[in-house]
Amino acid sequence: MGHQATITGTTRLFVIIGDPIEQVRSPQVFNPLLTGAGRDAVLVPVHVRPGGLAAVIQGFRAMDNLDGIVVTVPHKMAVAHLIDDIGPTGRLVGGVNAVRREPDGRLVGDMFDGQGFLIGLRRAGHDPKGRRALLVGAGGAGSAVGFALAGAGVERLTIVDVDAAKADGLASAVAAAHPQVRVDRGPAVPDGHDLVINATPLGMRPDDPLPLDPARLTPGILVADIIMKPAVTPLLHAAAAQGCIVHPGKAMLDSQVEAIAGFFGIPMP
Amino acid sequence: MGHQATITGTTRLFVIIGDPIEQVRSPQVFNPLLTGAGRDAVLVPVHVRPGGLAAVIQGFRAMDNLDGIVVTVPHKMAVAHLIDDIGPTGRLVGGVNAVRREPDGRLVGDMFDGQGFLIGLRRAGHDPKGRRALLVGAGGAGSAVGFALAGAGVERLTIVDVDAAKADGLASAVAAAHPQVRVDRGPAVPDGHDLVINATPLGMRPDDPLPLDPARLTPGILVADIIMKPAVTPLLHAAAAQGCIVHPGKAMLDSQVEAIAGFFGIPMP
Repeated sequence: MGHQATITGTTRLFVIIGDPIEQVRSPQVFNPLLTGAGRDAVLVPVHVRPGGLAAVIQGFRAMDNLDGIVVTVPHKMAVAHLIDDIGPTGRLVGGVNAVRREPDGRLVGDMFDGQGFLIGLRRAGHDPKGRRALLVGAGGAGSAVGFALAGAGVERLTIVDVDAAKADGLASAVAAAHPQVRVDRGPAVPDGHDLVINATPLGMRPDDPLPLDPARLTPGILVADIIMKPAVTPLLHAAAAQGCIVHPGKAMLDSQVEAIAGFFGIPMP
Repeated sequence: MGHQATITGTTRLFVIIGDPIEQVRSPQVFNPLLTGAGRDAVLVPVHVRPGGLAAVIQGFRAMDNLDGIVVTVPHKMAVAHLIDDIGPTGRLVGGVNAVRREPDGRLVGDMFDGQGFLIGLRRAGHDPKGRRALLVGAGGAGSAVGFALAGAGVERLTIVDVDAAKADGLASAVAAAHPQVRVDRGPAVPDGHDLVINATPLGMRPDDPLPLDPARLTPGILVADIIMKPAVTPLLHAAAAQGCIVHPGKAMLDSQVEAIAGFFGIPMP
């Protein structure tokens, strides 16, 4: 028996879209919330490759009992171009990780990654204020984390991405939004930083290369990953071996759920 | 707690599409079958209006973890034009009520109304082989039943419809597909038949006229109805009073589930 209410013809739908999809935790997290709130609704995973994203979003528009979409890798940026309106954080970041269907049928999205990351970090006792942060990955999640860290008062933010234009774009945008923060681009080398964040997908697959060379990590650096599965990524494992403090991706997820549930109008227990 | 397994990122999807959708029973019927078979899959309702059907089917094509679609009113005919291949019965009838995604991604549909009727009839101990059948109603369901009866080896099939062209068309098509069966058109008079099927909607509403004159029914004739609600139609009631054996519409629904489950590769308990 499952952790969701019995599905019938009246059941409303939420979905999570991603590629890959197998590792997502949203069904296990949101379905008990929906059931607990007495909502006749269910969240199901939808595997969508980038080439199919536009067709899937068009299809969702015509599914009248669909109420919301959780968006994960690699669709956060692309979905932002396929919906009707974007909230303030999502507009800043240029991506969304949750989309809600308004009563008039419009799809409105916003980005809760950054907020989730921050809440999770603070809940674990790590205030990013005054820290020198190295952010590896300037995609959807990386952008959200970058804006959130700048907003939380890091002293310095160094942005890395294999796509130089992406790193440039994010650095300029964060600097413009937060002129008090020193924003740089740089190599994936932790020297001079005390907070390192992996916001790339590297580490989800067993044969992925590490996002940075762990030999350059020194004891006391806080190393955070946004990957949720595996819970301890090869980077976190290597960082712990170097004497670093590690902060797993699950903390971000847990904190983000609360923000997204609020956006969807699902009361928390 | 629900009658379906816990949904996770690995869960495969089945959907039922219809307009309206609230009344469908497929989620309650298929989810226990999926759970019972140990399949990590769930069937959810999708409300699609006719104007959104093409977009939804295109969206389904790009949902890589979607394995099958149950199709109900009013989409059976329209879906047949939006998929890649149609099985023999669906092609004959011109509609589908189940669509499966093949390993290569192609959407293949077929119509199981007729097969469901047949299985239900046999399960009740009534083999149509060698019978002389009078089929009243040559619409979508009537067509499916007509082809199924001919395929099951009735000796004779007489087709009746208030729309003469419809009856002609179905009679010609069934005769062409099953040359060994004597296919006629005729009045709604049971003389010379030992199996009578109502495949019209007459009997769903309390003030409907009967589809044929029950005074012409004689003891021992098997009278079947495809109407599911009411369970005992006025025709079946009158037929029983005449000493006929009666076969209600619900048997067709129950048996159809088995046929569709087989098409989807879901083992029955």
